Amino acid sequence: MLLQNEAGALSRAAGLFAARGYNIDSLTVAATHDPSVSRLTLVTVGDDAVIDQIIKQSRKLVDVIELVDLTGREHLESELLLVKLELAPDAPDALTALVTFLRRHPRAHVLDISAGVRTIEYTGTGPEVEEFLAALAPVGRVLEVARSGTAALERGAAVLAMT
Amino acid sequence: MLLQNEAGALSRAAGLFAARGYNIDSLTVAATHDPSVSRLTLVTVGDDAVIDQIIKQSRKLVDVIELVDLTGREHLESELLLVKLELAPDAPDALTALVTFLRRHPRAHVLDISAGVRTIEYTGTGPEVEEFLAALAPVGRVLEVARSGTAALERGAAVLAMT
Repeated sequence: MLLQNEAGALSRAAGLFAARGYNIDSLTVAATHDPSVSRLTLVTVGDDAVIDQIIKQSRKLVDVIELVDLTGREHLESELLLVKLELAPDAPDALTALVTFLRRHPRAHVLDISAGVRTIEYTGTGPEVEEFLAALAPVGRVLEVARSGTAALERGAAVLAMT
Repeated sequence: MLLQNEAGALSRAAGLFAARGYNIDSLTVAATHDPSVSRLTLVTVGDDAVIDQIIKQSRKLVDVIELVDLTGREHLESELLLVKLELAPDAPDALTALVTFLRRHPRAHVLDISAGVRTIEYTGTGPEVEEFLAALAPVGRVLEVARSGTAALERGAAVLAMT
């Protein structure tokens, strides 16, 4: 959804979910090209009736400019993962295993190298992020993760609003 | 911050900002390895006194498990950008320009190819995302952007909490 970038806009949107007991699986919000407008992507799970209700109620929020349910449309989803990995200290081939792993994952990039620790960035759909984390297990121990939550755009030339 | 993954937790955090008139520049929230715990990264701007006040008040929120101000620590930031680009229709070299551009930006990936339109993913710090968008201008017309907002991890082996 596109939201007026005003103090309280996010609070009102999140408050609607809280008041009705709807869960928020993930939420990303940041400015668009127009600094007075934010774009918010929210992931929630529910049957069609619940989703319809959420959409109708969200449209009534004073700050909501545009809103679209991307699930029913062809769209692209991506999520950012930051993961801090501890390499096995006594395995001389830990680095080789990591290099091989990264070669197989072109959307992964090493952001930081510290003693025995690598911070890696990866992007993919939610299930791809889960698979990536599972595939990391033999390479090292995951110390910490930060996930952005899902960002999404409709496929093709369609736009929610001109930027 | 680490938050209890409960309906209302995000609403209470956003409500604190709204009630005091603090601005939220960007916010990302998603589950951690522990499905009962969410990790939220919030970017705001203020002088030291205001930030101190925000941190103290946020710590008092019932759902907040851990909270750290990463600005004062060595840390890594990254943001996900999705951008929908319309290639100049009458420029036969538009595709070549795009390929050259992508070769210079290894953290950019084409997610979708439609007639005359490409959807591109990019990751970087906030300023890097701005630069990337500016550099795209000669390659085509930006139809739409979705930015995730900033995700961050402290540098090195330190963790906010074990995952």
